[in-house]
Amino acid sequence: MIDRNGAGRHPGSVRGSLPLVSAFAVADLLGLVAFGELLAFERMAGDARLAPDLRRRAALNEMAAAEIANYRRLADRLTALGVPPEDAMAPYVEPVQAYHDSTEPRDWAEVVTKAYVGDAITDDFVREIADTLDEPDRGLVLDVLHDSRYADFAAAEIRLAVADDPRVAGRLSMWARRLVGEALSQAGRVAAERATLTALIARDGRVDVVPGLFGRLTTAHTARMAAAGLNN
Amino acid sequence: MIDRNGAGRHPGSVRGSLPLVSAFAVADLLGLVAFGELLAFERMAGDARLAPDLRRRAALNEMAAAEIANYRRLADRLTALGVPPEDAMAPYVEPVQAYHDSTEPRDWAEVVTKAYVGDAITDDFVREIADTLDEPDRGLVLDVLHDSRYADFAAAEIRLAVADDPRVAGRLSMWARRLVGEALSQAGRVAAERATLTALIARDGRVDVVPGLFGRLTTAHTARMAAAGLNN
Repeated sequence: MIDRNGAGRHPGSVRGSLPLVSAFAVADLLGLVAFGELLAFERMAGDARLAPDLRRRAALNEMAAAEIANYRRLADRLTALGVPPEDAMAPYVEPVQAYHDSTEPRDWAEVVTKAYVGDAITDDFVREIADTLDEPDRGLVLDVLHDSRYADFAAAEIRLAVADDPRVAGRLSMWARRLVGEALSQAGRVAAERATLTALIARDGRVDVVPGLFGRLTTAHTARMAAAGLNN
Repeated sequence: MIDRNGAGRHPGSVRGSLPLVSAFAVADLLGLVAFGELLAFERMAGDARLAPDLRRRAALNEMAAAEIANYRRLADRLTALGVPPEDAMAPYVEPVQAYHDSTEPRDWAEVVTKAYVGDAITDDFVREIADTLDEPDRGLVLDVLHDSRYADFAAAEIRLAVADDPRVAGRLSMWARRLVGEALSQAGRVAAERATLTALIARDGRVDVVPGLFGRLTTAHTARMAAAGLNN
C-alpha cells in the first residue's frame, strides 16, 4: 500500500524520510543518475583510444573511473531503499544508450567536448533535483557532482584544440549543440514515460516544470560553452 | 652517466634505494605494469556491453575501475623516480595492444575468462618480479595485486556458464590457452627487445630466467583453470 500520510518519516529508517510513493520516485531518480554514471564510464573509457598521447589517454580514463565511484554510492543507496540497482536502472538503458549511440565522437576534441558537456549537464540536472529531495538522498546526489578538476582538464583541452586551429571552434560549437539537443531529446522521452520521476521534479505542483528545467539547463550550458571558448 | 657503484643507495632518496642503472630498469618494469593496468581498464570497460544483465555489467565495470587506482599509484611512483609515466609506458603500447587485439572476447563467458586469466597472470608476474625489487618498489607492486573478490566473481561466472552448458568448458579451456599463448608471445617480444627489463628479472645472473619464469606462470595458470572448472 502506498503510504500518503507520511508514516515512516523517521530520519534514519531504511527507506529514508520519504513516504513510500516518494521512495519509488527517489529510486527512479537514483536509477537514472546511476545508469548515467555507468554508461558515461563505459563510453569515456572507450573514447580514450582517441587520445593523442598516453598522458591524455590516462587522464580521460581516470575521469571515467571517477564515475564508477559515484555509481557505487548510488547503487548502495538503492539497495538500502530495498530496490535492486538493476531494476531502478532498467527503464533508462534504452534512452541513455540512444544518446551515446547518436553522439559517437570522431576525434579527441569531440571526446573532451562530450565529456565536458555531458558531465556539466548531468551536474546541473542533479543540482536541480537535489532541491526536491530530503536527506540523506539530497546529500548523496550532491556528493556525486563531478570533481571540477576533470572539467578543468576537458576545458583546457578544448581551448588547446581551438588555439591549434581556430576553425575547430565552429565545429565543436556545433557538436556541443548536437550533444545538448540529443540529451534533451532523450530526457524528454524519459520525462514523458516516467510519471513518477516527473512528479518528483514537479513536486510543487507546477505542470510546466520540465520545460522550465530544460530552459535553465540550456542557459547554463551556453555560459559554459563561452567559458571554453566556444559559441552557442 | 650510469652509476654502477651503488652511489645513491640511500633509502628514502628520490630515486629510491637502487643504483641508477637499476632505477631505469625499475621504471621500465613499472611502465609495463602501469600500461597493462591502463589497457586492462579500457578493454574490460569496453567488454562490459557483453554482460547479460545490468548487475554483471556494473560488476565488470567496477572490476575495471580497480585497475585505474593501481595505474595511478604506479604513475605517481614513476613521477617520483623522475620518469614521465607516458615515457615509461611507451615501449609497451604496441605489444599490449596487440595482445588485446588478438584476444577480443565474443561473449560474456569469454569476457570473464579473459579478465580471470589476465588478472591472475599479471599478479603472478608481479609477484615474481617483486622479489627482484628493493623497497619501496617491492611494496608498491605487491600492493597493486588484484583484489581476490574480482577473481572470485569471474571464477563464479565461468562455473555458472559451464553449469549452464557443459560444452562451454571445452570452448573456454581452448580460449584460456589462446589467451596465455598470446600473452606469452607478446611477453617474449618485450623480453627480447627490452634488455634492461630482462636484466632486472635475471638479476641473479641466470640467462635462462625468462623461460623459467614463463614455465612457472604457465603451471600456475593450469592450476587456476582447474579451480574454475576448466581443463588445460
